[in-house]
Amino acid sequence: MANSHLPDRDRLQALLLAYIEPARALGLAVEAASPAGVILTAPIAGNRNDKGTAFAGSLLSAAALAGWALVSCICAAESIDVEVALQASDARFLAPGRANLRAVARAPEEAALVKLKRMLTRGGRGRVEITVAVTSGDAEVMTFTGTYAVIVGGADPRRLLPIE
Amino acid sequence: MANSHLPDRDRLQALLLAYIEPARALGLAVEAASPAGVILTAPIAGNRNDKGTAFAGSLLSAAALAGWALVSCICAAESIDVEVALQASDARFLAPGRANLRAVARAPEEAALVKLKRMLTRGGRGRVEITVAVTSGDAEVMTFTGTYAVIVGGADPRRLLPIE
Repeated sequence: MANSHLPDRDRLQALLLAYIEPARALGLAVEAASPAGVILTAPIAGNRNDKGTAFAGSLLSAAALAGWALVSCICAAESIDVEVALQASDARFLAPGRANLRAVARAPEEAALVKLKRMLTRGGRGRVEITVAVTSGDAEVMTFTGTYAVIVGGADPRRLLPIE
Repeated sequence: MANSHLPDRDRLQALLLAYIEPARALGLAVEAASPAGVILTAPIAGNRNDKGTAFAGSLLSAAALAGWALVSCICAAESIDVEVALQASDARFLAPGRANLRAVARAPEEAALVKLKRMLTRGGRGRVEITVAVTSGDAEVMTFTGTYAVIVGGADPRRLLPIE
């Protein structure tokens, strides 16, 4: 996705459904999208495992996309046209999910954003860590940390991994 | 899933489609299933992202399930009736995936299996690390390490996390 325009909630929803093939099957919807944070939701129905609780892969998918969307929003707000790809992820599963899902990606601290912008403007590539919390009803069911590779312009960042 | 019977390839395929709701949407199929290893496949079609390459969430889902299935196979071969849940995961994305996907989970070394069996028979619960390599055509696109919680009997392991 080239981020020449700031993706608000409706635009991000349209992008997810148009370009992320599994998004529709997962039932993903955008609750909020700004450089301060992205919230994606998914129904528990269709995302259950053999235990009738949230499937780990669905939690990981929602978290990975929430982080990706947040990095896209952050760069778009700075008018930097980028491609973003997940380079690494680390997740902890905390409790079974029995209700609808909500993946909340919050902007990293200012120092990380300043560093990312400097890497992008000087070298045309950078990376940033985003933490995503996934809740199911009142329960926090997963914490996810994704390291996202960011490339200015149209190249696929994953062709250039790892970005140090 | 209660593992009173050794899940061969056809049985595992049926279990995935019956009990893992997103498995059908992902197009997951079982290529091999034994205590020595589990191989799951997924078509690239339906699993692409905005860059037209394999969606990280689909890679994570396939890997998480391959590891889960392998732990289930290992315990079934020992006639230990268990529930298995992913407790933590760590993934590295290596290259863009442009062809059909294959998630290969290999049995851990003997010492880890001996330790798992001892934990299960003595305390009724245990955990084990499984490494999964995901390829797309000739390219290795992701390495995944999952820590799986294992509980003897019918309890949901995720209700008891973390298992140390």
